[in-house]
Amino acid sequence: MCRWLAYSGAPIFLDEVLFKTDHSLIDQSLHASDPLSTTNGDGFGIGWYDKRDVPGVYKDIRPAWNDRNLQALANQIESGMFMAHVRATTGSPVQRTNCHPFSHEKWLFLHNGLINQYDTLRRDLLLAISPGLFPVLQGTTDSELMFMLALTCGMAGDVQSGIARMAGLVEETAARHGVEDALQMTLGISDGQSLYAVRYSTEGNSRSLYHTANREATMEIAPDAGRFSRDARAIVSEPLSSLEAEWIPVPEASFIEIAHGKVTCVPFAPISP
Amino acid sequence: MCRWLAYSGAPIFLDEVLFKTDHSLIDQSLHASDPLSTTNGDGFGIGWYDKRDVPGVYKDIRPAWNDRNLQALANQIESGMFMAHVRATTGSPVQRTNCHPFSHEKWLFLHNGLINQYDTLRRDLLLAISPGLFPVLQGTTDSELMFMLALTCGMAGDVQSGIARMAGLVEETAARHGVEDALQMTLGISDGQSLYAVRYSTEGNSRSLYHTANREATMEIAPDAGRFSRDARAIVSEPLSSLEAEWIPVPEASFIEIAHGKVTCVPFAPISP
Amino acid sequence: MCRWLAYSGAPIFLDEVLFKTDHSLIDQSLHASDPLSTTNGDGFGIGWYDKRDVPGVYKDIRPAWNDRNLQALANQIESGMFMAHVRATTGSPVQRTNCHPFSHEKWLFLHNGLINQYDTLRRDLLLAISPGLFPVLQGTTDSELMFMLALTCGMAGDVQSGIARMAGLVEETAARHGVEDALQMTLGISDGQSLYAVRYSTEGNSRSLYHTANREATMEIAPDAGRFSRDARAIVSEPLSSLEAEWIPVPEASFIEIAHGKVTCVPFAPISP
Amino acid sequence: MCRWLAYSGAPIFLDEVLFKTDHSLIDQSLHASDPLSTTNGDGFGIGWYDKRDVPGVYKDIRPAWNDRNLQALANQIESGMFMAHVRATTGSPVQRTNCHPFSHEKWLFLHNGLINQYDTLRRDLLLAISPGLFPVLQGTTDSELMFMLALTCGMAGDVQSGIARMAGLVEETAARHGVEDALQMTLGISDGQSLYAVRYSTEGNSRSLYHTANREATMEIAPDAGRFSRDARAIVSEPLSSLEAEWIPVPEASFIEIAHGKVTCVPFAPISP
Repeated sequence: MCRWLAYSGAPIFLDEVLFKTDHSLIDQSLHASDPLSTTNGDGFGIGWYDKRDVPGVYKDIRPAWNDRNLQALANQIESGMFMAHVRATTGSPVQRTNCHPFSHEKWLFLHNGLINQYDTLRRDLLLAISPGLFPVLQGTTDSELMFMLALTCGMAGDVQSGIARMAGLVEETAARHGVEDALQMTLGISDGQSLYAVRYSTEGNSRSLYHTANREATMEIAPDAGRFSRDARAIVSEPLSSLEAEWIPVPEASFIEIAHGKVTCVPFAPISP
Repeated sequence: MCRWLAYSGAPIFLDEVLFKTDHSLIDQSLHASDPLSTTNGDGFGIGWYDKRDVPGVYKDIRPAWNDRNLQALANQIESGMFMAHVRATTGSPVQRTNCHPFSHEKWLFLHNGLINQYDTLRRDLLLAISPGLFPVLQGTTDSELMFMLALTCGMAGDVQSGIARMAGLVEETAARHGVEDALQMTLGISDGQSLYAVRYSTEGNSRSLYHTANREATMEIAPDAGRFSRDARAIVSEPLSSLEAEWIPVPEASFIEIAHGKVTCVPFAPISP
Repeated sequence: MCRWLAYSGAPIFLDEVLFKTDHSLIDQSLHASDPLSTTNGDGFGIGWYDKRDVPGVYKDIRPAWNDRNLQALANQIESGMFMAHVRATTGSPVQRTNCHPFSHEKWLFLHNGLINQYDTLRRDLLLAISPGLFPVLQGTTDSELMFMLALTCGMAGDVQSGIARMAGLVEETAARHGVEDALQMTLGISDGQSLYAVRYSTEGNSRSLYHTANREATMEIAPDAGRFSRDARAIVSEPLSSLEAEWIPVPEASFIEIAHGKVTCVPFAPISP
Repeated sequence: MCRWLAYSGAPIFLDEVLFKTDHSLIDQSLHASDPLSTTNGDGFGIGWYDKRDVPGVYKDIRPAWNDRNLQALANQIESGMFMAHVRATTGSPVQRTNCHPFSHEKWLFLHNGLINQYDTLRRDLLLAISPGLFPVLQGTTDSELMFMLALTCGMAGDVQSGIARMAGLVEETAARHGVEDALQMTLGISDGQSLYAVRYSTEGNSRSLYHTANREATMEIAPDAGRFSRDARAIVSEPLSSLEAEWIPVPEASFIEIAHGKVTCVPFAPISP
């Protein structure tokens, strides 16, 4: 089980969110307050938009908590649209190409969850990737494969539809192999303009997802940053400990778009192929 | 262009071959005597047979020449059947799962060469892997894919036939896509009993491969080891500098088996699917 | 707070101890049963004696639990005298030269604990290292420095005396700087013949250390190995969960030597310089 | 023998200099045109000034040529004062803390060269570091030690004097130990405002150093960047192949300061302690 965080608003330095709080993503990945929660020490990644058309990405296989490059970079990088991910592998090798977020052209994509019995389904799902996108695939995770399938299914033109068709394809493939509870996912996606998120699972019991509805709640991810704009919003995969303000649970089976501080939440359902 | 070496004979310590000579594989990977030759700094690997049914494998993404773990391990590991590989990537990410040798059950497999226009052919070739072997695939190289295809084509029962059918499959797939000069390869393979090697390319102009025919020539890979048995034999992908003895060039399109000091060399031709 | 384990007895494969039990060192480093205990994800190391005069050492900066090289090596390495360490840094960079065990000539040395206010004392303690040993120093930990000081203090001739003089030197240096509670340590040391361990802290409240007194208790570190000799003994820094047999707590301020199954435990006290 | 490059001028993206030219620093580190030149595959680093008081630093132990993080970061980072270094170790372990540039507060520091018989002199030189700076030391190179000594000798107040006193201290220490040809160095230093460089060796036969005197010459380090300001200047440790414009060799024993396009070059001589 991984953890992730995404931010949209006026530019802030990443270290304000990632390092300078007692309940930062990175701090909690190491010192889980809940003994049952997983240590997220199997690599990490950050993705951000700055002055270039394509996002920046920095990933490594170390635990995020002991990577001094990450501290130095997060101290320099200022961005109004970024996401971060700490990983706990469920079997795929720990290598940079398996770390989130994944990027392709202007897109960033990250995932918490899994494709059930991935070993059984992987071959058929790989073959469903558009041949033109096939060479883009670098790693071996179910998450990157979902990203390639979503792009194959038209995510670049319509994010919600692309994700829904990807989910439908995974569920249909699973059904063909007799695999139950095919998909478990929270997703964070961006094209640099909007921040998208999805909470969904085949079994109807999805992993958690929360977003902020106003500037005050968002400030809790970095109380000392002092630079949050009125339209600053954040999404987190799991509640950060000691938060108290209005973090809104994303309902089961939902699709969210955040743009310029406006949060739109609509029901999400897979579209069968 | 990678470089590799394989050994079969009485057990010797690996560092005698890998580190303790002026013209060792690792030394030459760094200080190439030929300015046109490539620096092999994109990862390395060793595979060896000892007391277990499966071989040991140690790979890392550093250049072999600066890895102190490799030095310490090569000083401890004693083996009568081992192989080593230094890599120069032609595009695949530098990660352990892309380093040679690849292993599966009792098999070791390494490769110098390439599948031409791999990006174009990769999808169809992946599709040809036996579904049962598909979950074994860990990386993204053409080399590991060739290993999986050879196993799919029955290499475990008949090595030469499995490799020939794999080569035929690659060439047939390339022809279907209009890709010329499909395959370029020297291969080193072992099941722990015999050492196999192949020299072949579609264009009939294969990368070099040499083997020793007697104890004296083999001793040149480790002049100070002083423990070579009468049946010690070695294979190298490229001539080590300053060697003078009887290193025999493997003829174009050949299949070699070395067992108990006996070297059998027969013509090799792909078998079309 | 790190964790470590050491073994002396008939040769066994390392993976039997490190991987093949529910309460292995590596498993517990990730899934601590106690929520207050630290995640030991900041590198690891193993050291072992085999056929060479010097021990083998393998260290890396990843968490031990996701390193596939470690799994492959532990499956091949068979040893009758070995130790393993998983690290949680208290500030020193995570790099191989800071991972335990440290080695020099025939010696292996590992440590759980710390020199209090190391930043304050480090310079004076470095100065106390024998000039001849100074070039041996590779990393920046207090632990490696203690190893160099113990060698400087004659550990190679008399282990207990060398460690006692090292501890006295650290305490005297701390007193000079007004630093209290100078030293906190459990140590594991070997010359390939005997296994030595020390439990000591300036404040008289040392971190835990346990050893086995018979074959049956030792077998609990690898219940399925089935090859334990009558003289097999083990030392662990912290009790492995679910162990029930006779693991004997090492008394506060003790020095232990294990040789051929015989465990000698005597009081330990620093010797002032 | 390492290679390095430094830039001062209007902000440009780092990838324009590091990746997008046929004769980039990184390209030449791999494909040396001179067969005698060293492969610089033992780690690398970049340092740059942006919006924060302290510089950003990114270092890793891989060869620069295969690090995809570096490519992604260099595509995002825009800076008007930066430096880059590719390393060929002469013995110190390959670890991030041994990669250049080194940073402390607002300072960046990198080095090509060596302290002769460093193992012999290291202990005395370490003891010459100001106790207040001692905890800043992270690695084990002669280069970082020279940085700490220069700061100890007042570099923060007067760069030329600090470096001259450091060089004098090294030479005096060497003389005491009977070590000849104590120091060999080209240095690149910045406080974010000025770019400083030194070319000096005890033997009077220093490694090369070149700078540009105008915008046109500087443009050769990134012909397609198209954004060079009139005051853009660069320093390189070794001539980039195929350069033709006015790259000015820095004279033996010189100290250079570049600020706002103005290059000041004065004689450099060590100051004895």
